[in-house]
Amino acid sequence: MKSSVARSKSERVRALWFEDEALVMIDQTRLPLELSYIHARDYRAVIDAIKRLAVRGAPAIGIAGAYAAYLAASEVMKSDSRHSFRVLTALDEIENARPTAVNLAWAVNRQRELVRAHFGDVDLSLLTYLRREADAILSEDEAMCRQIGEFGASLIGASAGVITHCNTGALATGGIGTALGAIYIAHEQGKKLRVYADETRPLLQGARLTAWELTQAGIDVTLIIDSAAGMLLAQKKIDVALVGADRIALNGDVINKIGTYTLATLCAAHDVPFYVCAPMSTYDPNMKSGADCVIEERSPLEITEGFGKRTAPLHTPVYSPAFDITPARLVSAYVTDQGIRPGGRSCREGSH
Amino acid sequence: MKSSVARSKSERVRALWFEDEALVMIDQTRLPLELSYIHARDYRAVIDAIKRLAVRGAPAIGIAGAYAAYLAASEVMKSDSRHSFRVLTALDEIENARPTAVNLAWAVNRQRELVRAHFGDVDLSLLTYLRREADAILSEDEAMCRQIGEFGASLIGASAGVITHCNTGALATGGIGTALGAIYIAHEQGKKLRVYADETRPLLQGARLTAWELTQAGIDVTLIIDSAAGMLLAQKKIDVALVGADRIALNGDVINKIGTYTLATLCAAHDVPFYVCAPMSTYDPNMKSGADCVIEERSPLEITEGFGKRTAPLHTPVYSPAFDITPARLVSAYVTDQGIRPGGRSCREGSH
Repeated sequence: MKSSVARSKSERVRALWFEDEALVMIDQTRLPLELSYIHARDYRAVIDAIKRLAVRGAPAIGIAGAYAAYLAASEVMKSDSRHSFRVLTALDEIENARPTAVNLAWAVNRQRELVRAHFGDVDLSLLTYLRREADAILSEDEAMCRQIGEFGASLIGASAGVITHCNTGALATGGIGTALGAIYIAHEQGKKLRVYADETRPLLQGARLTAWELTQAGIDVTLIIDSAAGMLLAQKKIDVALVGADRIALNGDVINKIGTYTLATLCAAHDVPFYVCAPMSTYDPNMKSGADCVIEERSPLEITEGFGKRTAPLHTPVYSPAFDITPARLVSAYVTDQGIRPGGRSCREGSH
Repeated sequence: MKSSVARSKSERVRALWFEDEALVMIDQTRLPLELSYIHARDYRAVIDAIKRLAVRGAPAIGIAGAYAAYLAASEVMKSDSRHSFRVLTALDEIENARPTAVNLAWAVNRQRELVRAHFGDVDLSLLTYLRREADAILSEDEAMCRQIGEFGASLIGASAGVITHCNTGALATGGIGTALGAIYIAHEQGKKLRVYADETRPLLQGARLTAWELTQAGIDVTLIIDSAAGMLLAQKKIDVALVGADRIALNGDVINKIGTYTLATLCAAHDVPFYVCAPMSTYDPNMKSGADCVIEERSPLEITEGFGKRTAPLHTPVYSPAFDITPARLVSAYVTDQGIRPGGRSCREGSH
């Protein structure tokens, strides 16, 4: 299932793209052991891929949802009863594949508006519009990653030790990623990087995905356990920390993968800049501060049975928050697609 | 292999004891899935248990080595050629089972001196001395744990959230442990504890062993991933942190399981006291400061294949230090068998 297009199109990893009437997605559940692709020609196959985390990362899921909408309309177009009402029903199914992923609802909604504007029989023009919209969502995301990457790269020295958390790269987006985007651009610019990827318990996105995609790109990456970050900082091996964000409150508090706050605290204690890389769309106009955020708790089994082997006694209580909240005062700057915005640390440090 | 003695002797977990001419040890490699015991009647079986980490924790290994010396002498006593030279050869084998465990060398050396004092044919009196010495090493360790536990418990409030790292309990010692010893005594005293055990990557001693032994003792324990410690501290769920030490330098720097420094830094940032619990013998008179310590690196496979399933790409470089160094300035106090000694943080905070 290795696609020649994947190799010829570019040297970098792509999580997903559309070709020959199929949405092609890396099956991320098989990484790093196996690089295989899902060719989804049916919107239900896309839903399945989203549900079982074969495709993940909020922007990537949004893009997948947009193409799924096109696939759903194509299917209706070929059927006897071509009414666009059937497409809208499929769109609801797609949106519900992962209800918590904001980008999925947002992307599906862009397609829903097109379907509504063409309400009636599905025809070639609607198909064309849906396909174009999905392509636009993908290319907008790609451009946004590149912008974040360029702004972020400007904050990385010519020779730098970099630490990152979770996976914020090509596998999570339609482009080169957010925090990893900055690393890719800095690498392209010839900067000498030594990247430390923490494994990111419990689901090990750092070990399974970040280490994998940086290796594919020829970037020097070293894997550490999450709790070794302190020691690396004490050894002065880290010049800069770059992370992503799932959501940013209006006061600058950052909701991101559990462990982000620990890393931010360590960086502040060692005077190492801590940058949050995310598109402007990550700012939630309805969230004044991180305190407003209800933190989702994940299944204890992700910690105690995450590897197919039980690692703790049965019935041990487990606290497994999916995210934590990094207060604005620990952020040196926010790297967005529209530029660099100062964080709470930069204010305190007097550069503002 | 469940021993009725283990149940009747006390309610608490014991890592090892001697009975019916056998050293009985919990096979810690099978925890938490299975509680089974090794009955070693032959010193080679003890060596095997030490080598494959069935018995672990520096004090527990020392005790096992002392009994192995007795078993070796018993075997020689029953043979045709009873010369104590054969016992000395066995002692070298025992000492080399884990060359880095300081307590093993120390305990074997106590037995070696007895053998040398009785140089010649092995007789009943030498056997008696060796057995008594092993019993003494065990009961000294037991008493020491209790003392540390009592001093430590005095630092824990009547109702407290406690965080601990790795395993420093009954499974690691001949008694109730060091940092966990303090938790056991506080629990005995009727204090209301909520203990958070971090899983302690890579070998998961927190998940596999600490969660297990605290549950056995009926203590409220919750498992977290290592990187969630920051969030718990921010949520004010932690009143005190208690950890052990593998070695303490003369200036108070602490060498302990990787992740200790990260936790100490987090505690300092949240004004939560950080206590290091260890016997006075943990102070290394040959080490002026932590900077003198060469940090052992472990096999990358402990991180990337620790769960029987590969979690990172093949050939990914891995940095896997076994220990880190917590500078004295981050320690609130040292809880030893001879009392509580102020740490660098208590000095800065003006209580000194």
